[in-house]
Amino acid sequence: MTELTISLDGTSGKPLYEQIYDHIKNEIQRGGLPFKERLPSTRKLAQYLQVSRSTVDMAYEQLISEGYIEAVPCRGYFVCEVSGLYESPVPVREAKSRPREEQPHYRYDFSPNGVDLKSFPYNAWRKLSKTVLMDDSSELFMLGDPSGEERLKTTIAAHLHRARGVNVRPEQIVIGAGTDYLLMLLQVLLPGRCRIAMENPTYKKAYQVLKNLGNDMCVIDMDGSGMEVEKLKASGAEIAYVMPSHQYPLGTVMPISRRLKLLGWAYEREERYLIEDDYDSEFRYKGKPIPALQGYDRQGKVIYLGTFSKSIAPAIRVSFLVLPERLLAVYQERGRAFSSTVSRVDQMIVAAFLEEGYYERHLNKMRAIYKGRHDLLLEGLRAIKGIEVTGENAGVHLLVHFQNGLTEEEALERAAKAGIRVYGLSAYYVTEKEKETKPTVILGYANIEEHEIREAASLLKHAWENKKTAQP
Amino acid sequence: MTELTISLDGTSGKPLYEQIYDHIKNEIQRGGLPFKERLPSTRKLAQYLQVSRSTVDMAYEQLISEGYIEAVPCRGYFVCEVSGLYESPVPVREAKSRPREEQPHYRYDFSPNGVDLKSFPYNAWRKLSKTVLMDDSSELFMLGDPSGEERLKTTIAAHLHRARGVNVRPEQIVIGAGTDYLLMLLQVLLPGRCRIAMENPTYKKAYQVLKNLGNDMCVIDMDGSGMEVEKLKASGAEIAYVMPSHQYPLGTVMPISRRLKLLGWAYEREERYLIEDDYDSEFRYKGKPIPALQGYDRQGKVIYLGTFSKSIAPAIRVSFLVLPERLLAVYQERGRAFSSTVSRVDQMIVAAFLEEGYYERHLNKMRAIYKGRHDLLLEGLRAIKGIEVTGENAGVHLLVHFQNGLTEEEALERAAKAGIRVYGLSAYYVTEKEKETKPTVILGYANIEEHEIREAASLLKHAWENKKTAQP
Repeated sequence: MTELTISLDGTSGKPLYEQIYDHIKNEIQRGGLPFKERLPSTRKLAQYLQVSRSTVDMAYEQLISEGYIEAVPCRGYFVCEVSGLYESPVPVREAKSRPREEQPHYRYDFSPNGVDLKSFPYNAWRKLSKTVLMDDSSELFMLGDPSGEERLKTTIAAHLHRARGVNVRPEQIVIGAGTDYLLMLLQVLLPGRCRIAMENPTYKKAYQVLKNLGNDMCVIDMDGSGMEVEKLKASGAEIAYVMPSHQYPLGTVMPISRRLKLLGWAYEREERYLIEDDYDSEFRYKGKPIPALQGYDRQGKVIYLGTFSKSIAPAIRVSFLVLPERLLAVYQERGRAFSSTVSRVDQMIVAAFLEEGYYERHLNKMRAIYKGRHDLLLEGLRAIKGIEVTGENAGVHLLVHFQNGLTEEEALERAAKAGIRVYGLSAYYVTEKEKETKPTVILGYANIEEHEIREAASLLKHAWENKKTAQP
Repeated sequence: MTELTISLDGTSGKPLYEQIYDHIKNEIQRGGLPFKERLPSTRKLAQYLQVSRSTVDMAYEQLISEGYIEAVPCRGYFVCEVSGLYESPVPVREAKSRPREEQPHYRYDFSPNGVDLKSFPYNAWRKLSKTVLMDDSSELFMLGDPSGEERLKTTIAAHLHRARGVNVRPEQIVIGAGTDYLLMLLQVLLPGRCRIAMENPTYKKAYQVLKNLGNDMCVIDMDGSGMEVEKLKASGAEIAYVMPSHQYPLGTVMPISRRLKLLGWAYEREERYLIEDDYDSEFRYKGKPIPALQGYDRQGKVIYLGTFSKSIAPAIRVSFLVLPERLLAVYQERGRAFSSTVSRVDQMIVAAFLEEGYYERHLNKMRAIYKGRHDLLLEGLRAIKGIEVTGENAGVHLLVHFQNGLTEEEALERAAKAGIRVYGLSAYYVTEKEKETKPTVILGYANIEEHEIREAASLLKHAWENKKTAQP
């Protein structure tokens, strides 16, 4: 039996039992107390250290719990085998901060991903948050249905039917925290790795997400009506990911004939599906909204993907899938294992936001704000010679095509020199387009106020109109 | 050219342009206006219908946008080819409500998944929500870092280091909406389908999630120290999913020697990892908390999985992964494509909850409440002859093993007859255990108050003590 000489410090603030525990543990770890060594009885050690027996009891019990020693009835306490693998804890490494990219400073940034958050209805949101949390309703803090709350699903179904012509029962809806998550979940429902076709150019974030999920990705060139169906057929893809109401980034509205052809393609084989990403259908400044492709689907081939990221705010992590019947059955079987990623509190806030008319009012307000910016930017750009503007009437960005000899790179550079950030279309192509295309840049106007647009447009006119050769 | 006879209804509330648009669209859809048919000019139609020309313009523009007609310069408007595929919209099907299972009524339900939400700090939560939303801070509504907010990650890292002995820099943390989601994300970082070993019995939800993600699952029997490492070796698994601090459902605390052996197994091959699910380490009623396995890992082999579901509330969808360096590099490359699933507002609320000491106070309060229930249930059960109780000192459930000849099924039935729901251990086994085990039931006490526990324990004593043969 070992004599245990432990220097206890009554003033250290560390409980005595913990000091004893630490000492013995460290001795075992460094090999000072070897395997099978017998420890003094709690009575003897307590006497020796001049502490109460319960203090030693507590230290021993903790050592037993963690497996450093064991109690053998009628024989005493023995050191367990803590094999040679033990090494002292690893020191926490210093943070290696990722190097920050040097960003040039821009006066105006026409980011196509902007959202005007100055107009976010903070008061309404606060009020609804408060109301939802008011009742100490413990139910709200229990885990809800994996597919989302009945109330929110019913509200979204009614909204989709009314505003988007989507043909949907609440049961078909799955709520999720963002479209990336919903694509992950969709992957679980599909039979493993798929060949997925996307438009070219496209929303590269979704391309990357689907690729990182292990799918075999391909891109299909677009003509003026959208994805070319003959090329889609030739690609061998099982799934086509499209944005029929307002293609990102080109702004193409897919006409009814192309929609029906795409559906026809999907009808041909059981494993084929269309993913309809209806990301920003809310913002259309002329006429009625373009109905969703899903509403024309008669054979359960369209997986509809919607979000409140664009229409409320990016950080509102509430998106939704509308599953066709066959995938719904798979979801019931395999998907319900995954708990909902949106808290019930957040779901209730969004449901109330829709039900109480805040959503519609917010959309109307944003439509008016964005339309003002859209009109002004369009006017400013149309005053520039040698360029053509497309993508108007919807969304929150315009495309500028150069016919004056400027390359995309030159257009970006000249804008940058004038303190303005615009975005090259080439970055949205996954592979080079087969046909030569005009140099094109994208200007998102969601987050730029009207007086800034005026100023920026006149700077751009100066930057882009000068003949190529006139540039120093 | 067609004469278009459209009966307009000025009192219907539907704008005139929409009535014209609807009429023409329906005619095209039903074949009344065939492909290539020329429409009247807007001037003529306006005259004919006695409406303003801009009304007809709007109708035609909408039809053009959706691709039903096209404008040919200098020639007029023509019907597009809407191929024979078109059929009228599908009527919304009636909701088929899933049949509800008939649930017998229980007076007391000892569910192991219970959480006491009566004690949820609603006031603090409301106050923090309000404060976070106070500033109209538009930044909070922009998309944040995919891995979570710096502030929350730093707070969690400090907490994990202090309370769990986890060796972690904030950069290694990925915040996600629930552990199911984090397992999905982890799947993206691993090289495809893995062979994953879990303890048997285990947390079947995680088993199902990992299985549905396409992994090749296997289970490893446990001895008194946890997963048997020799059997793990023989299984060919690359990943072992363990709960070392408090195994669910058995309550086993994995001793230091077994931990080191498990780490040794993981060190042997590059592709091997341990997933440490530290789901309820907060609730321990005796001595210090058992440190996490992760703190002993010297080679970056432990993937630590933590959650606030048990310690705050199930609907707080905030969980976190601690990634070892090698997987962190993969995350930087492939995982960052997936936007965060937790809103910044929610992240800020949880960060403030931890930083301002609410979390610690809440845990202390819950520990005291749960300990009271634990002690009382333990006392009540120990008064029952012919059974043995294990799993005490931690977590929020106890295990009762029958040595009086009752089978698990009989024990459940007798409890049910007394109005009490308890849970059979056999349901937690993925495959039959190799060795015969004693009939065992689980009693979760998180959501049952002390006076109910007293009553329930005496009912159980009556139900379980009667000799098997004495039962009618």
